[in-house]
Amino acid sequence: MFTRNNWIRGSRAGVTAARLPAYRPVNITTRLQSSTKANEQLFHRYFVKPAKYAAYGCGSIVFGISAFVAIIFAHDAMTYEGSYIDRVNANPISMAPQTGGKKNLPITQIFMDDEEDPEAQAISEKPHLVIIGNGWGGIGVLKELEHGDYKVTVISPANHTLFTPLLPSAAVGTVEIRSLVESLRKLVARVRGHYISGAAADIDLSNRLIEVHSKRPDGSVDQFYVPYDKVVIAVGANTASHGVPGLEHCFQLKTVGDVLRIRRSIMQNLEAAALPTTSDQERKRLLSFVICGGGPTGIEMAAEIFDVLNEEVGKYFPKLLRKEISVHVIQSRDHILNTFSEKISEYAEKKFAKDEINVVLNARVSRVEKDKILYTLKTEKGDKTEHVIPAGFMLWSTGLGMNPFAKRVCEQLPNQFHSKAIIVDSHMRVKGAPQGTVYAIGDNATVDNNLLDALLDLVDDCDRDQDGRIDFEEFEIMSQKLRHRFPLAKSHLQKIKNIFQRYDKDKDNVLDLNELASLFSEISSKIVSLPATAQVASQEGKYLGKKLSKLASARERLSGTEIVNQAGDLDDEIVSVPFSYRHLGSLAYIGNSAVFDFGSPELSFAGGLISLYLWRSIYWSEQVSNRTRALVMIDWIKRGIWGRDLSKDRKKVQ
Amino acid sequence: MFTRNNWIRGSRAGVTAARLPAYRPVNITTRLQSSTKANEQLFHRYFVKPAKYAAYGCGSIVFGISAFVAIIFAHDAMTYEGSYIDRVNANPISMAPQTGGKKNLPITQIFMDDEEDPEAQAISEKPHLVIIGNGWGGIGVLKELEHGDYKVTVISPANHTLFTPLLPSAAVGTVEIRSLVESLRKLVARVRGHYISGAAADIDLSNRLIEVHSKRPDGSVDQFYVPYDKVVIAVGANTASHGVPGLEHCFQLKTVGDVLRIRRSIMQNLEAAALPTTSDQERKRLLSFVICGGGPTGIEMAAEIFDVLNEEVGKYFPKLLRKEISVHVIQSRDHILNTFSEKISEYAEKKFAKDEINVVLNARVSRVEKDKILYTLKTEKGDKTEHVIPAGFMLWSTGLGMNPFAKRVCEQLPNQFHSKAIIVDSHMRVKGAPQGTVYAIGDNATVDNNLLDALLDLVDDCDRDQDGRIDFEEFEIMSQKLRHRFPLAKSHLQKIKNIFQRYDKDKDNVLDLNELASLFSEISSKIVSLPATAQVASQEGKYLGKKLSKLASARERLSGTEIVNQAGDLDDEIVSVPFSYRHLGSLAYIGNSAVFDFGSPELSFAGGLISLYLWRSIYWSEQVSNRTRALVMIDWIKRGIWGRDLSKDRKKVQ
Repeated sequence: MFTRNNWIRGSRAGVTAARLPAYRPVNITTRLQSSTKANEQLFHRYFVKPAKYAAYGCGSIVFGISAFVAIIFAHDAMTYEGSYIDRVNANPISMAPQTGGKKNLPITQIFMDDEEDPEAQAISEKPHLVIIGNGWGGIGVLKELEHGDYKVTVISPANHTLFTPLLPSAAVGTVEIRSLVESLRKLVARVRGHYISGAAADIDLSNRLIEVHSKRPDGSVDQFYVPYDKVVIAVGANTASHGVPGLEHCFQLKTVGDVLRIRRSIMQNLEAAALPTTSDQERKRLLSFVICGGGPTGIEMAAEIFDVLNEEVGKYFPKLLRKEISVHVIQSRDHILNTFSEKISEYAEKKFAKDEINVVLNARVSRVEKDKILYTLKTEKGDKTEHVIPAGFMLWSTGLGMNPFAKRVCEQLPNQFHSKAIIVDSHMRVKGAPQGTVYAIGDNATVDNNLLDALLDLVDDCDRDQDGRIDFEEFEIMSQKLRHRFPLAKSHLQKIKNIFQRYDKDKDNVLDLNELASLFSEISSKIVSLPATAQVASQEGKYLGKKLSKLASARERLSGTEIVNQAGDLDDEIVSVPFSYRHLGSLAYIGNSAVFDFGSPELSFAGGLISLYLWRSIYWSEQVSNRTRALVMIDWIKRGIWGRDLSKDRKKVQ
Repeated sequence: MFTRNNWIRGSRAGVTAARLPAYRPVNITTRLQSSTKANEQLFHRYFVKPAKYAAYGCGSIVFGISAFVAIIFAHDAMTYEGSYIDRVNANPISMAPQTGGKKNLPITQIFMDDEEDPEAQAISEKPHLVIIGNGWGGIGVLKELEHGDYKVTVISPANHTLFTPLLPSAAVGTVEIRSLVESLRKLVARVRGHYISGAAADIDLSNRLIEVHSKRPDGSVDQFYVPYDKVVIAVGANTASHGVPGLEHCFQLKTVGDVLRIRRSIMQNLEAAALPTTSDQERKRLLSFVICGGGPTGIEMAAEIFDVLNEEVGKYFPKLLRKEISVHVIQSRDHILNTFSEKISEYAEKKFAKDEINVVLNARVSRVEKDKILYTLKTEKGDKTEHVIPAGFMLWSTGLGMNPFAKRVCEQLPNQFHSKAIIVDSHMRVKGAPQGTVYAIGDNATVDNNLLDALLDLVDDCDRDQDGRIDFEEFEIMSQKLRHRFPLAKSHLQKIKNIFQRYDKDKDNVLDLNELASLFSEISSKIVSLPATAQVASQEGKYLGKKLSKLASARERLSGTEIVNQAGDLDDEIVSVPFSYRHLGSLAYIGNSAVFDFGSPELSFAGGLISLYLWRSIYWSEQVSNRTRALVMIDWIKRGIWGRDLSKDRKKVQ
């Protein structure tokens, strides 16, 4: 038996031998006594003490968690109160709005909660800021506003905002879609704003009205006008079809509904593949997952699908299914993740090759059918070859098209000739719209990079000696103004001495209008537009939100003076810093691993579990609220403990 | 300034006064010294020590939680391995099954994962137990089976089981629907069973085949046979329409899909009611929630809807909406919760009256239209009056109808004349089916309570002197056998001396056949069938699972002997205890409060936050897995901290 005494006896020989010099004769009794004491000390040091600390440690964990639970319970118990309301003030006009505008629709001058209490009343008298859209841009604006700056109204068909970067994770159940969603009503409550469930369909610039179409539960559509003093257009972009027929057979990945449909489809395919009546060929088709588009969304979706099939299917479905699964990525460029650095792209391609994810490069999808996808490849000789992949699941995640509302805005304005977005100046003001009233941000906006538009203005401004030509001194001022007005051109306006000399074709030490025009147009052509990413939209939103908030406090300060009524001028007077994008890096999940591109090759980073956790921490910190932050964390922990949720909804037979 | 010295000085006077007897002259220096020391001790006792303990406490909480998080992370990091599979054995027959049976459909004798590895191979040679249904009954059976007892196959259209009692909570977002769902594939994995996604459509009793219809992703339906050695029918019941027209306008509350639809509908109605173009009348209609059925589901749904409207709507929607909301319960009986004790019903009615939930009693729904519900009330004179409630949301949660598969089973068997369920004996064996092969449990089964069927058998058995009549001694044996065979009759077979005398009409101290028949039929009429509740289904499932497991081990023991082939006989030989229901009480949530009925009036319990927590703990402990247990707990905590999730999905306009 292993008792304490045995333990001491068992260790005696070694310990005493180590302590006493060899061959020295000693009194055996003393030696035994002292060694027993030493052993007791050792026992105490190596057994009792550690046990005590372990007990402290475990006790602390238990106590800590229990105390935490107790606090949560105590808080929870206080949350079950009813909120009874006696009487509610509402202006009758809010419930029977007067009609007007070009289409003679109801105009919602007053909302039904505008006169609920004195605070609401005070806010309702502020200028009306309308934000259209629930994406990164709109939420960015909303979060920067201060309580009381404006009467704020958000218009969006969905009454939530969605953390889009984690949609691929949600589509396979790594996180729950509900964890990515935050209620717009909760977000607008901070500034006591309003939310209107509907889509902006048109704008009436002269009367400052937004036409909203709202679908009712019975399917009918209500049409009405929402008046604005300032409007922010942040509706995002649509998916572009690139003229490919049959896209209705593809899934997209933009909304909560998309996620639910994809999740159901994956599980349905797996269950159908497991049926005994499914033929070999059909099983392979059902288990063939094709992603069109090799950008971050497509790559992450492919990686997540591979993960769920790899980690869960082998465990709970017949193993045969695991063998017959195939994941394909069809990319039109010669690399996946082509906006990332080449090192990163190659790393991702290697990882995918290892995982046996089939990456098809330089391919154009030519047609999509119910059960297959057709694409063409160019051979080296320049011939085109047709290929087919039978598919049980197809996702279209490539290309941006113009949102119909953004298109309506452009149609009503001069100089709006961009095919995919509204052109804004570097202050996010829509070009051609009455100054200080219409802003556009995010995927539906593109910052003007045509320097030529500003040429004559700038020459007027900078040509001090009024000789119609620009000498170097004048050019220095001009380039400063250019950098200020077109922040995207900054990198092309370095070393201006060189530039000046290069474009001074006749070497007369001045630039005439022709020389300037060729300089301006060449720089314009070199400017790369900002990419349509969440990061750009979010930064634009925050920039605009801060600016609008500053404008509001300036309005308070200047109230009563004349300047107030010239909103456009005020904008330039008060906040003259144009928007400047700061790229914080790109990242993508590539299957139990992630890649990061922080701009320069030294800072780029790829691979390993650490990168997975880093990828998660970045997305975690970007969450819109602490609520979704906690929920996403719980989801990740859940995945570790119990795996993904494999359930599919019931489908009725007959 | 409040420094340590100040603090000591401040408390000096009182303390010294208490310590020293009054008016006794003392050396002032000693006194000052001793009092300073005392003060230091006091400071230590009341300030330093508590601060130390508080620091220990906080430190423990922080350390405890951090250690917990670290453990979770460490575990999580180990879960990102791939499971690569080289080769999979699969019998070719499993992928091209032979056809047969009455309809010449494919018969799935072998599944594709039956020969994956030696363990699977061994299990596939066991008798085949088929469980039809994913509800309380089926899962009850599944959870009691031991690994290796049978080759187990579960057939169900949904590949998950659902914790139905919390569906009303999920429908309003108090808990997430995903937290109530557990994958059937995970549950069958414990016994290395199979799952087939499909609905049982018919049974071929002579060939022992279940006909399964499975809907494929493209909408087509596969039909095939699954052979069985034993089959458990646990498909549950359908909702009965009671002949009411227009039920397609009502929601039901049975599946994940129902929950998602209800949740979306509630949010859509709220958003539509908040639109400025909605008329007063239409807003009231949209905010009118009508529940048909005053049983636990209906009541809990009404309470949950009231909760969400009360707790969340007032906070985030215009307060006007909160005022115009109405919740109605239409009940056909003269009390809500009529299966509970009267005290409980009345408590619930009072609570609802306080919450201004409109309860309509003794009402029959006569018709449902798109936007209203019509019902008739009987006046005291017996006249009927018609009433209308305009409604934006209608839930039908009353009445049980026969499942089509259960109906098909009954049609093929003699003596199956029950209109709503399959008649089983007290061993859960389907009456008339080949013994030991077909069992039915849950809502689709009703335990036979017609004692007359057993009359002649019992007389044969108990009439020892073979005189065709039963004396009291024989009657004692007979009543014992009756109690055993009809556990539901137990309570009606107390004080048998009295019974014997009462039915011995001619007072000859023996009961003849006529007298016995009248006794048997009278007792039969008194027996109340078991209610169609989760509790009954679960207990029946567990009973049957245990029995089937015992049968399996008996089979092993007796293998080789003759008895094995007579499955029916074995059943009675080995496990002779019939099913006996033990009512553990009923409970219902009635809005920040709950009611409990534990059988007797003394044990019944209603009201208060405590009861809400008790209600939750009971449901919590009943969860099907630790996963759902953790998730539901998190959901409840979430509600306390962040309120309910108010998002609705995007609806496309045009």
